[in-house]
Amino acid sequence: RVNGQRLWDSLMEMAKIGATEKGGVCRLALTDLDKQGRDLFVTWAKQAGCSISVDQMGNVFARRAGRDNSLAPVITGSHADSQPTGGRFDGIYGVLGGLEVIRSLNDHGIETDRPIEVVIWTNEEGSRFAPAMVSSGVFAGVFTLEYGLSRTDIDGKTMGEELQRIGYAGDLPVGGRDIHAAFELHIEQGPILEAENKTIGVVSHAQGQRWYEVVFTGQESHAGPTPMPRRKDALLAAARVIDLVNQIGHAHAPFACATVGMLQVHPNSRNVIPGRVFFTVDLRHPEDEVLSRMDAELRAGIARIAEHTRVETSTLEQIFYYKPVAFDADCVASVRAAAELFGYSHRDMVSGAGHDACYLAQVAPTSMVFVPCVDGISHNEVEDAKPEWIEAGCNVLLHAMLERAGR
Amino acid sequence: RVNGQRLWDSLMEMAKIGATEKGGVCRLALTDLDKQGRDLFVTWAKQAGCSISVDQMGNVFARRAGRDNSLAPVITGSHADSQPTGGRFDGIYGVLGGLEVIRSLNDHGIETDRPIEVVIWTNEEGSRFAPAMVSSGVFAGVFTLEYGLSRTDIDGKTMGEELQRIGYAGDLPVGGRDIHAAFELHIEQGPILEAENKTIGVVSHAQGQRWYEVVFTGQESHAGPTPMPRRKDALLAAARVIDLVNQIGHAHAPFACATVGMLQVHPNSRNVIPGRVFFTVDLRHPEDEVLSRMDAELRAGIARIAEHTRVETSTLEQIFYYKPVAFDADCVASVRAAAELFGYSHRDMVSGAGHDACYLAQVAPTSMVFVPCVDGISHNEVEDAKPEWIEAGCNVLLHAMLERAGR
Ligand SMILES: NC(=O)NCCC(=O)O
Ligand SMILES: NC(=O)NCCC(=O)O
Repeated sequence: RVNGQRLWDSLMEMAKIGATEKGGVCRLALTDLDKQGRDLFVTWAKQAGCSISVDQMGNVFARRAGRDNSLAPVITGSHADSQPTGGRFDGIYGVLGGLEVIRSLNDHGIETDRPIEVVIWTNEEGSRFAPAMVSSGVFAGVFTLEYGLSRTDIDGKTMGEELQRIGYAGDLPVGGRDIHAAFELHIEQGPILEAENKTIGVVSHAQGQRWYEVVFTGQESHAGPTPMPRRKDALLAAARVIDLVNQIGHAHAPFACATVGMLQVHPNSRNVIPGRVFFTVDLRHPEDEVLSRMDAELRAGIARIAEHTRVETSTLEQIFYYKPVAFDADCVASVRAAAELFGYSHRDMVSGAGHDACYLAQVAPTSMVFVPCVDGISHNEVEDAKPEWIEAGCNVLLHAMLERAGR
Repeated sequence: RVNGQRLWDSLMEMAKIGATEKGGVCRLALTDLDKQGRDLFVTWAKQAGCSISVDQMGNVFARRAGRDNSLAPVITGSHADSQPTGGRFDGIYGVLGGLEVIRSLNDHGIETDRPIEVVIWTNEEGSRFAPAMVSSGVFAGVFTLEYGLSRTDIDGKTMGEELQRIGYAGDLPVGGRDIHAAFELHIEQGPILEAENKTIGVVSHAQGQRWYEVVFTGQESHAGPTPMPRRKDALLAAARVIDLVNQIGHAHAPFACATVGMLQVHPNSRNVIPGRVFFTVDLRHPEDEVLSRMDAELRAGIARIAEHTRVETSTLEQIFYYKPVAFDADCVASVRAAAELFGYSHRDMVSGAGHDACYLAQVAPTSMVFVPCVDGISHNEVEDAKPEWIEAGCNVLLHAMLERAGR
């Protein structure tokens, strides 16, 4: 069994870095605060006897040697970056949960046949730099290194520059090595486990995602003397797409999700008809054909709305797409068996969010462990989880990893 | 007759201050560029023999003495600030047109009985600091001095601080003195004159306006695992209001205008359901009862939309309201007579925009002179006007003022 109190204390200590007023964290990827969080993890991992390496995408690997270090490792981990108004558990729970596995193995003097590694994956959230899971994507060969390093934030800074600046541009090649098995521990970020009073989610699948960027160009003009029929209002067009996106989500109930999360208006002046609007669309579904139908509905709707509102669609670009993921049946079985070993209530489930594990699944047998979060709320400063859930998830991770690493 | 070429050259010289790539200007109120524009006007006005005074709202008065300086002056002027993506004529044409009247009187050695003043009114646009026409409003007693100085921009800077910073916090009391008559020369900012091939708009009225600020508070949560029916999406609610505002505009055709020009999303992250949205609404109509009906429709619609989308309306605040304005019949007649003197084609019209003249009308006999603008486009960098229109409008201003100032 892991030391639940120690894990909780480490989570609370880490949550001080970028702590927000409402009890959450703001630790955007590759900011000074992200560096502080990484440094703290590296300190703790070294204290636990790990060796540290960093690859060219800034992914950090803390390695505990096994009996035979020529064998491929069993890895776990998640991300240390957060949303602008993020919670104390999203991502970092999977990182410090992995560290707690190593600390517990040390406590009990347990050696494993294979080495164990705990990873921080750079920029998972996709908030400062889009898309999400960039660096596990490069690791899995889904994106090139050049693509990863050239992702740009709203101020034009690239991931490559920012990795250099905070001292996490390593020289290890990204990916291209054998992984025996991978597990990721995460809060559910949705309402299902709590509603059904289950402690462990055995994650068998993840839904597919498509992310888009849309720019509408209308014509700026004066909000007073410009008659309604002459207007080319880019914000009106965007508003209708926001409503359409919501309709697409409801039309493919109960599993579809469809969201406009980001929008910028130009020139954003009270008495100027908006001349340009940039916004993003996020479509998700567990079935790829349904996701394709949602994509087609979005494209047709945008074209129709642009015509009705007399604006131009300057761009409708899909910037991110991955198909629904089926995790490795054996790894899923290891998670289920570990939950049963402890007598934790559990259910199989589909992840609504994307995770680094979704890309790792392309290069290694992979699965995930979920624990509930209060009211199903995540990507919110009030995100919360009970200490007993946090401990239970880590116990399941420990045993799933042990089974794969050989003791 | 005025010197049209000199006026045009002065406009083009001034347009270099804050010039944008697309041929417009960005000279937001009380920025360094606004100071440069004011300084240039002051230099030119002094060269034309004027004395300069500045009041506590930073309104700048350039005075040409009359035969009897105990008589109340005839004033003209407009604003020197611009929209973020503004044109080369909006506002500044009325300021430099007034200067050209003085230069022309000097050229011809014409004395007037009454003094003549050309005014720059501070922050007319309402873009950096809302609402519009703040300082002519204080001059007219519609707002208090405290209210005016405490208007705040998006970064929390007040007009009072920024006036100090750029050296235009004068000590003259604001308003409270006799004005014999006031005229404002402006581009139409709408399509009517050009469409009807008229050179001069004799402005008899201005439509009423109501400006609002709305904040919707929903609940931030994850765009992936949060089922559609559980969402409290503040941006979805805002989108429906944007569509409603547009419908209100069309429902009261042909005169109503209804616009959402500014909107900010929080936390504005691609995979986060927006938790808070701030936006503005601008409603206009020439008849006050219709404007009141539009107000009622907006309020009812917002309440309905908030309920349907499960968000809270944190605020729905009307921050600006003025009733439709009827300009002084004698001043309007002076403008019409001046247009006829030159044989310019003209028509009576209602101003779609608000102008400093709308507030001055409360304390002095006032009217306005409009000239066409190309394609009716204003509040846009491509705003344009033909040199012959610019000259014609200034000739009309000269004669309307002369008639009132007595020669
Ligand atoms: N777990 C998580 O919040 N990932 C970010 C990518 C996504 O939006 O699904
Ligand atoms: N003339 C002008 O653009 N005024 C700004 C106030 C308004 O929006 O009507």
